[in-house]
Amino acid sequence: MSEKENFCAVIMAGGRGTRFWPLSREKRPKQFLPITSHRTMIEETVERLLPLVPYSSIYTISDGAQAKLIRRLLPRLPGKNVLVEPQGKNTAASLILATARVYLRNPRAVVAALCADHLISERDVFLRKLEASTEAAAMQEAIVTFGIPPTYPATGYGYIQISRHKVQNFRGESFYPVRRFKEKPGLEQAREFVADGRHFWNSGMFIWRADVFAQKLERFAPEFYPYWERILRAQKKKDDNAIRTIFKEIPAMSIDYALMEKVEGVLMNRGNFGWSDVGSWSSLAEIWTKDDTGNALYGDSLIIDSSGCLLYSPHKLTALIGLKDVIIVDTKDALLVCRKDQDQRVRHVIEALKKKKARKHL
Amino acid sequence: MSEKENFCAVIMAGGRGTRFWPLSREKRPKQFLPITSHRTMIEETVERLLPLVPYSSIYTISDGAQAKLIRRLLPRLPGKNVLVEPQGKNTAASLILATARVYLRNPRAVVAALCADHLISERDVFLRKLEASTEAAAMQEAIVTFGIPPTYPATGYGYIQISRHKVQNFRGESFYPVRRFKEKPGLEQAREFVADGRHFWNSGMFIWRADVFAQKLERFAPEFYPYWERILRAQKKKDDNAIRTIFKEIPAMSIDYALMEKVEGVLMNRGNFGWSDVGSWSSLAEIWTKDDTGNALYGDSLIIDSSGCLLYSPHKLTALIGLKDVIIVDTKDALLVCRKDQDQRVRHVIEALKKKKARKHL
Repeated sequence: MSEKENFCAVIMAGGRGTRFWPLSREKRPKQFLPITSHRTMIEETVERLLPLVPYSSIYTISDGAQAKLIRRLLPRLPGKNVLVEPQGKNTAASLILATARVYLRNPRAVVAALCADHLISERDVFLRKLEASTEAAAMQEAIVTFGIPPTYPATGYGYIQISRHKVQNFRGESFYPVRRFKEKPGLEQAREFVADGRHFWNSGMFIWRADVFAQKLERFAPEFYPYWERILRAQKKKDDNAIRTIFKEIPAMSIDYALMEKVEGVLMNRGNFGWSDVGSWSSLAEIWTKDDTGNALYGDSLIIDSSGCLLYSPHKLTALIGLKDVIIVDTKDALLVCRKDQDQRVRHVIEALKKKKARKHL
Repeated sequence: MSEKENFCAVIMAGGRGTRFWPLSREKRPKQFLPITSHRTMIEETVERLLPLVPYSSIYTISDGAQAKLIRRLLPRLPGKNVLVEPQGKNTAASLILATARVYLRNPRAVVAALCADHLISERDVFLRKLEASTEAAAMQEAIVTFGIPPTYPATGYGYIQISRHKVQNFRGESFYPVRRFKEKPGLEQAREFVADGRHFWNSGMFIWRADVFAQKLERFAPEFYPYWERILRAQKKKDDNAIRTIFKEIPAMSIDYALMEKVEGVLMNRGNFGWSDVGSWSSLAEIWTKDDTGNALYGDSLIIDSSGCLLYSPHKLTALIGLKDVIIVDTKDALLVCRKDQDQRVRHVIEALKKKKARKHL
């Protein structure tokens, strides 16, 4: 195994986000949409890694239907690297399964657990930091994470509190000891976090050596460790039935809650590489290039006296007249028109559709 | 000819209104759209007359392409009653052509010149008034018109000023001598018109005996009278080539400007029968039934915290979130999203499309 193969990326692609309805659907969540460029977000995520990680060292983890999509979108990804969860059991289970797979290849390989549906606009910065983080994780036998410098008191993210003492350096990058992972705060607390300069958004990206991950599980998440051992054994024997059984039993828990909030010896690197989790239509509007009056437009359009709008309309001519801060998303079988500051209520549409059993629009 | 056949309706169906874009198109203007009911406006206009006028006495006048549509929509209308103008030359030419046709059938027949794209919600009142107007027109050898009681100082309509002296009665209806037809006023003047109680909106509907129309033309619109005579001769000989030649020469002028503003001996009946010329999407919103929060909805929809909107979306599910007074019109190849009080700017879309030579969307 070459030095490069000592490093594997695991892309978590099992998300089911519905915040981009009507473009995103149960069967085509955000990571499979070309919303940040002409390519889907998962393609972007893989392409972003290629200077550092060859296809053969990139894994994805998702459900079976999503795996099919991934194989179609990324034909150069080896089929065996497209890992399938028998059922969705949140990120702890996903990452145990994927890390075990890497462990079987090389227990000392470093795993970077990444998200399929995040935007990182400064690729070079990201790769430089990722490489340094890999080294830090390998040398320090630590879990490394990227903390995003907060730009406003967000209540939708977890936070990472760091210490400014005993900061370590690898390849010119600073790694701060993490004091605590904190769940999503209230607004008041979020304001304090942003003000004190010692809190960063939890990006959900983690870097660990496979064997170190196992040790950390054993010590800090002992209820998950037996599942790790069983999954490892089942994978060794390529026993898919056993995996299915284990997945029925394993608790559904996020890796943050299962491990990160308890584990010791975590290092944080500043994730100032143009990160966005693109969590809503309005956040997408911020990313897209705008016309003279601040409209983010995709598709043939005629804009009359309108500003601050987001229009996604790939199939037809759309005329906007006299609108301010409105989101318009037109797909073949559904249309959304939404005030920009109300876009978190798209989930109410999903709830209403579920109530109506309007499956085809979900 | 029975008494009923002494009365003919001429429905002017040649309009090219573009104010209902993207639903209305050059080839399918408002009168051919089912926007006030499940039937097109021209079907509604014809059906409305049937208790008083048999199909055999109903004429339409339009261009050739529109005539084809009319024949398809109204198969019970005799084909010979679907009159075709060789080219659009405004309403004076249309009504000379149509009235001449009726004149050849019976010079003393009464013609009611009606519009294909107006809404009249109180049919019984309308028919009662139409019948009385027919009698007034026949007995008084007058032109009768319906004046709409103004509900606001509209600057988009012409006005009819009446006298309250020498009011005549037919079948219990009052007929007021018209003092003047007035062009569209400014807002100041419109306010005075509405306040003085002697001004009514010009509905564009006129009732005259065919021979009286000819006499009035001869006396008050002498520049048009030769065309009347030539059209009459050409129709007698069924000489379509001659009609084409005459239409090349005849001035393009509205009947209001050509005749009504000059003619003497016009009587007005109050047109309080739920009239609307449905001149815009917002006026349509007033007509449609509303949901609890004042949204006029056509099509499958999910409404979240929205009010005063008009939604026309027959092909797909549409979700509205947090909107107030927005018009959304979705068609197969074009979408309009427009602030309600800006809907007169739909014509700017048309202008832009013309500039772009985007024929398929016109």
